[in-house]
Amino acid sequence: MARESSGDPEATVWVQDFADGSRDQAALLGGKGANLAEMTRVLGSQRVPAGFTITTAACVTYMESDGNQPAGLTEQVDAARIRLEQAAGRELGDPSDPLLVSVRSGARESMPGMLDSVLNLGLNDETVEGLAAKTNNARFAWDSYRRLIQMYGTVVVNVAGDEFEHLLDQSRSDSGVSLDSELSTEALIELVAASKKLVNFPQDPFEQLSQAIKAVFDSWAGGRAVAYRRINHIPDIWGTAVNVQQMVFGNKGPRSGSGVAFSRDEVTGAPNPSGDFLSNAQGEDVVSGARTPEDLSSLASLMPDAHAELLAILDKLERHYGDMQDTEFTIEEERLYMLQTRSAKRPAQAAVRFAVDSVAEGLLTKDQAISTIDTATLESLLHPTFDPSVNYETIAVGVAASPGAASGAIVLTSAAAIESEKEGRNVILVRRFTEADDVAGFHAARGILTSEGGKASHAALVARGMGRPAVTGAGSVEVDLEAGTVQIGDRVLRAGDQIAINGTTGEITSDDVPLIEPEISAAFRTVLDWCSKLQRMEVRANADTPDDARRALELGARGIGLCRTEHMFLGDRQPLMAAVILAKNDAERNQGLEVLKALQEQDFAEIFGVMEGLPVTIRLLDPPLHEFLPRPETLDPGPTRDRVVALQETNPMLGTRGVRLGILFPAIYQMQAEAIFAAAIAVREVTGKLPQVEIMIPLVDYEKELSIARSQIEEAAALCSLRADTDYQVGTMIELPRACVLADRIAEQADFFSFGTNDLTQTTLGFSRDDIEARILSSYIDAGIVDRSPFETIDAPGVGQLVRMAAWLGRTARPDLHLGVCGEHAGDPDSIAFFEESGIDYVSCSPYRIPVARVAAAQAAINRSARQSATKA
Amino acid sequence: MARESSGDPEATVWVQDFADGSRDQAALLGGKGANLAEMTRVLGSQRVPAGFTITTAACVTYMESDGNQPAGLTEQVDAARIRLEQAAGRELGDPSDPLLVSVRSGARESMPGMLDSVLNLGLNDETVEGLAAKTNNARFAWDSYRRLIQMYGTVVVNVAGDEFEHLLDQSRSDSGVSLDSELSTEALIELVAASKKLVNFPQDPFEQLSQAIKAVFDSWAGGRAVAYRRINHIPDIWGTAVNVQQMVFGNKGPRSGSGVAFSRDEVTGAPNPSGDFLSNAQGEDVVSGARTPEDLSSLASLMPDAHAELLAILDKLERHYGDMQDTEFTIEEERLYMLQTRSAKRPAQAAVRFAVDSVAEGLLTKDQAISTIDTATLESLLHPTFDPSVNYETIAVGVAASPGAASGAIVLTSAAAIESEKEGRNVILVRRFTEADDVAGFHAARGILTSEGGKASHAALVARGMGRPAVTGAGSVEVDLEAGTVQIGDRVLRAGDQIAINGTTGEITSDDVPLIEPEISAAFRTVLDWCSKLQRMEVRANADTPDDARRALELGARGIGLCRTEHMFLGDRQPLMAAVILAKNDAERNQGLEVLKALQEQDFAEIFGVMEGLPVTIRLLDPPLHEFLPRPETLDPGPTRDRVVALQETNPMLGTRGVRLGILFPAIYQMQAEAIFAAAIAVREVTGKLPQVEIMIPLVDYEKELSIARSQIEEAAALCSLRADTDYQVGTMIELPRACVLADRIAEQADFFSFGTNDLTQTTLGFSRDDIEARILSSYIDAGIVDRSPFETIDAPGVGQLVRMAAWLGRTARPDLHLGVCGEHAGDPDSIAFFEESGIDYVSCSPYRIPVARVAAAQAAINRSARQSATKA
Repeated sequence: MARESSGDPEATVWVQDFADGSRDQAALLGGKGANLAEMTRVLGSQRVPAGFTITTAACVTYMESDGNQPAGLTEQVDAARIRLEQAAGRELGDPSDPLLVSVRSGARESMPGMLDSVLNLGLNDETVEGLAAKTNNARFAWDSYRRLIQMYGTVVVNVAGDEFEHLLDQSRSDSGVSLDSELSTEALIELVAASKKLVNFPQDPFEQLSQAIKAVFDSWAGGRAVAYRRINHIPDIWGTAVNVQQMVFGNKGPRSGSGVAFSRDEVTGAPNPSGDFLSNAQGEDVVSGARTPEDLSSLASLMPDAHAELLAILDKLERHYGDMQDTEFTIEEERLYMLQTRSAKRPAQAAVRFAVDSVAEGLLTKDQAISTIDTATLESLLHPTFDPSVNYETIAVGVAASPGAASGAIVLTSAAAIESEKEGRNVILVRRFTEADDVAGFHAARGILTSEGGKASHAALVARGMGRPAVTGAGSVEVDLEAGTVQIGDRVLRAGDQIAINGTTGEITSDDVPLIEPEISAAFRTVLDWCSKLQRMEVRANADTPDDARRALELGARGIGLCRTEHMFLGDRQPLMAAVILAKNDAERNQGLEVLKALQEQDFAEIFGVMEGLPVTIRLLDPPLHEFLPRPETLDPGPTRDRVVALQETNPMLGTRGVRLGILFPAIYQMQAEAIFAAAIAVREVTGKLPQVEIMIPLVDYEKELSIARSQIEEAAALCSLRADTDYQVGTMIELPRACVLADRIAEQADFFSFGTNDLTQTTLGFSRDDIEARILSSYIDAGIVDRSPFETIDAPGVGQLVRMAAWLGRTARPDLHLGVCGEHAGDPDSIAFFEESGIDYVSCSPYRIPVARVAAAQAAINRSARQSATKA
Repeated sequence: MARESSGDPEATVWVQDFADGSRDQAALLGGKGANLAEMTRVLGSQRVPAGFTITTAACVTYMESDGNQPAGLTEQVDAARIRLEQAAGRELGDPSDPLLVSVRSGARESMPGMLDSVLNLGLNDETVEGLAAKTNNARFAWDSYRRLIQMYGTVVVNVAGDEFEHLLDQSRSDSGVSLDSELSTEALIELVAASKKLVNFPQDPFEQLSQAIKAVFDSWAGGRAVAYRRINHIPDIWGTAVNVQQMVFGNKGPRSGSGVAFSRDEVTGAPNPSGDFLSNAQGEDVVSGARTPEDLSSLASLMPDAHAELLAILDKLERHYGDMQDTEFTIEEERLYMLQTRSAKRPAQAAVRFAVDSVAEGLLTKDQAISTIDTATLESLLHPTFDPSVNYETIAVGVAASPGAASGAIVLTSAAAIESEKEGRNVILVRRFTEADDVAGFHAARGILTSEGGKASHAALVARGMGRPAVTGAGSVEVDLEAGTVQIGDRVLRAGDQIAINGTTGEITSDDVPLIEPEISAAFRTVLDWCSKLQRMEVRANADTPDDARRALELGARGIGLCRTEHMFLGDRQPLMAAVILAKNDAERNQGLEVLKALQEQDFAEIFGVMEGLPVTIRLLDPPLHEFLPRPETLDPGPTRDRVVALQETNPMLGTRGVRLGILFPAIYQMQAEAIFAAAIAVREVTGKLPQVEIMIPLVDYEKELSIARSQIEEAAALCSLRADTDYQVGTMIELPRACVLADRIAEQADFFSFGTNDLTQTTLGFSRDDIEARILSSYIDAGIVDRSPFETIDAPGVGQLVRMAAWLGRTARPDLHLGVCGEHAGDPDSIAFFEESGIDYVSCSPYRIPVARVAAAQAAINRSARQSATKA
């Protein structure tokens, strides 16, 4: 594996004091370390307890040398600790006045709950007495000590947290109190004694420190962290930093406390700080949920000065960072300390509102504001949700695995899902987990619910791939296939009972809650308007019907980039198409084609009408013919069945489809071209203007295929006195590796390219999407081979390289060649960033992805021009 | 379409006299024109009638301007004609002593029978009298005239040849004679009169000439020529030249005649000239078969001087050309004229014999001799043939569509073929033509016979793809499916009757002729020995069994380049493998794997033993698991069937196979690696030397896949104390476009690459071989999109470009990377030439292709070094 050269390890600086760093150093110091350094710079060392960061480079070196300390690390930690002791005026392990520190992990990107902290480090049987004496607060000292032993036990030596919770339960019940903060000093002393039986707790503070640092390093390779990185596409090679910081104490009594605070409302984005606060508590109490925290506003009456200081700091940090902040703070005897700040993860509505408000307030430019939006969250604004005006009971919450809400009757098997769907009923497929043979059921169900698995489980991957809402890993859901029941808590549901899931939030309800279609808020409209001006790439829609086209227009599509004509041959018209394919002779076939032509003409005319002069890219027939035929096992023996069987293919994806059909059965493409031009003329008669027609030939390998299809189209156009270039364009899908390698030759026959990155991914990787996502992908993610599906985000080094090659070759032959992308990657922000860098002119995605794509395209353009300015400067 | 720039058309030279050209100009003058020029230089203008050539460039320009004469052509033809008249001392159309000429086509490569000639041009009602008077031979003059009208009619204005034949029949029967040469002058005069009723024959000789030239140009685009070019992979853009030459007359009486002569025996290659001769005849009589020609030796007694001159000329031409020559000559009143020479197309045994003899005689160097062999013919030496020592009756002859001989019972349907094969009977599938649904029958049959279609028909393509002998287009075979009969001539055969076909020759017999396995002659062995020294690339074999390995060694393989382990899991062992796949738990699976391991170990040990220290490249399991399972429809409902169904894939070619299996089911690759190393150790115990083991991982996309598989292998090796690099190698198939694009990363994990060009073709082109060859290919050849199957010869600009990219990238990362090819292209001479240029180290093909591959590799190396010397000089 490549790694950045670390030079002479002896000379490497592994440790840096907070006072010497800045936020630019997140790669080296981790996000937390860099922000602690930045806060120290901005707020001064009085507000931020002193400390130092052990770098991510130390972690990586540690991992690569199989858990041996990097040379020089021990010495550097000692030196930093001595500096810290000097600044604090206390020494680690001093029995009379011990320095206590926290040890916290911090990777480059924040990973909430994934890596662990140890607080109060430095206490032992001796120093606890010293602390009690010095602070004159024995309860505080013993409370801190029992916390240290618990955290050390769970984090450093992996004792199960339950065991400590059990001791606490016992102690509370023995004491007859309900809160930990009500335990007496004596009870805490007993608790310490009991806890020490669970852990071989080192009394030496230096040993505590070195073990804690090692534990943080090790936790990077631990199961939870690895799983989180898989889901969130974080490379293993980043490593984590370790922050060692002088303790301040929120558990010193009623005038102390800890909390989290956001610079704006964390849910709505409204411009008023929000957060939680717990008095007489350390930070982890706020997060753990053991006590219910109070709203931040309660601090205003409790400790008005500290509250005012906090608000001023939040404002200062937000201005300094140019983004909504999420902070942690501790108040020790009315003195406010800031322990962390970071840009706030926030739901889409808050992100959008902050973007709009920040511009109105003069805090950010539009470019900057757009860049604060995490496009991954935006999609939630565009899916159905539970009607928020209706009360419903959430009976369980699982992993929000695939966004959107769905409701229907419970089915427990794929077969039942398929059957129910045939009867026209909406169903939710409920399984413990899913496997390849469940995939047919995904198609038939409105949504998927599983009791096992997370965001990278089979169910989650397949559901996201298909755009089906899914909640996974809902542990309280027990599926009993034999009994035909689903038990959730003490509620027993049966197959056929109503259930609803919200894949955006993970909620599950058995109430018949109505779903509402998403609407775009005024703030979001404002953001999208800005994007239109900032983006370089256009966003078009994949739309096959007038309804799709209308929806696409509403969502801001600048045309249709992919109109799949085969979808017009399904449903009611399938028998017509089947008759054409199975026709016994040309006369019969031509008769059928005439009927289809009239229908297609009407379809096209409607779509042209809706799009009002915006470009409409129509792809001629693509899928293998047998997709339009009944399944052979449903037919009686005889010539029809024989013909249907003969049309089956071993690998239909690589078979008789796309332009190959146009060559083998010229009448089909001819019919389609005639229908398109007749529709265009009909629209011109009404509007006085020809629609912008772009005809697209799929699955081209050879320039000759394209020139043959082009000739067919030109002949059909000539019948209507239309001329290529001026009246319409003919282009091609680039979706096969050969076409990429020979794009210059193909460009000589093409007015535009549209990259079909779905098929290009299938052929470049030799991955059948259906087969791979169902069987292989989760194992590949587990094995670290890929970090997500290559059908979700484009495989930049492989497939992307071919796209760039084709774009370059195509423009070599034809400098004005128009380049689009119409695979599903066209709606994926990471892929959009790649296309921006590859000189693509437009992306074309599903209507509901258009707003996401517009924001992503704007961000990509902003990043690109920022980088270009940086390069110039 | 690209074409070479012709500059100012007015200035272009479209016409060149024979006296001014040479054999290097075949591209411009066509093969015939270039050889006429060369012969004129070598033999002098007394032996070769004077004339001129209209260039292929003129033909191409004519075609590209839709049949308009290139500017300046008419003037240049006029000037050349005047030069010819001056040399001949006669003028075209002179009523008293007319110049007569022949007009003959001649493309860059000889296309026998594909393009047409007009002889005796210049005769009309007036000049025929002049010719009669001047030669004092009225019969000769009128015979020449009736021939002209007939040839003009059939060639220039497309009158059906039958109509003239009918007139000739009539005339012979009216005259009571059996041969045309016995017709009287009066009968010929009547024949001329009757013929003129069939044709609007221009009396103006200049009009005759210009129409004949135009007809030759047009014939290039005619159906027969196009079909021939398709079959023989000749580009349309070459065009044909036109040769206009002063006539000499073999039909002037008994002291005249025409013939063809080979410089050596045309069948055996023995060093004595052979050929045919007809007295009192023009050239086309020899070819047409209307009269049976005599053996060339008869000329020795008839006209000993001319015969001696001919032998001297044949010798001179062979020495001059350095190759066996095929000539046409005419004797006019005992004076010998040479009308054509070219390198002789010859069967494999003659080619091989000539190569060996020519070196022994000092005529050629070994390099030169090897280069005279047409590898396409060699394969016939390596297939079963009819036993030549047995008499059999050939009842029909069709197109030799796929080489080899086969015999068996007639079946008329694919279903019957499959059923009979199950019963263990050998069958020949006989059809009018075949379609996609017949393909299953191809597998089951020993050979294929069709009454329709040529070398590019569906039946021919599929049969060649599968290595099944086939005879197609046997027009006299009538298949009556209803009646269950096959009528051949007046013989009626029924389904179940014995038939045998020879796909190398096109012969069909109903005799029970024994087949004999091919043997390699001494001459061929000599040639192969030379090749071993001349070739740069090594040739290895694809061999899965000890028998294959032995055969490969006999044929000169330098190792095994592809040992497909999955073939070891079929047959008797299939149930074992099925049990492993369907195992209910790990214990059951591991038990099954242990059994398979013991069997594999034995297989490998045997193969290593046979190969005696030569490299053996073993590919770990590649195909999707369901290939080892029973078909689901053969199973009762239940969990086993469910599991089998779950393993079915939509596009198995792109599914769960190759290294993906190794990642999903590590136990399988682990078992295989352990078996390989155990076998290697067992062999070492016997021989004292480790075999050269190369383990190959299929279907790699990501370097991480390879590194995971590599670790598995290294662990297995470590158990036997074997070490990578020194004791064995680990490499990968490069068979996916992604692997080509990222070959540098993959090379860091690989000791060698082996290009799997079958799969690489499937993925790069998005072509499923089964589906495309059965359904699409012949249409694509007809449409001029491809000239052959991309699975037969590598698609150099597309797939080949990726191979070169991968070779270059791979060597960038690892300069010593060993590169092989193990797709079927490895046995195809054109592809081998491409691999030679691409820096490939070895090709690995089916054992029976090894000799062809060795000759092709030697030729490629010779060509390459010749070109390199030329570049240096």
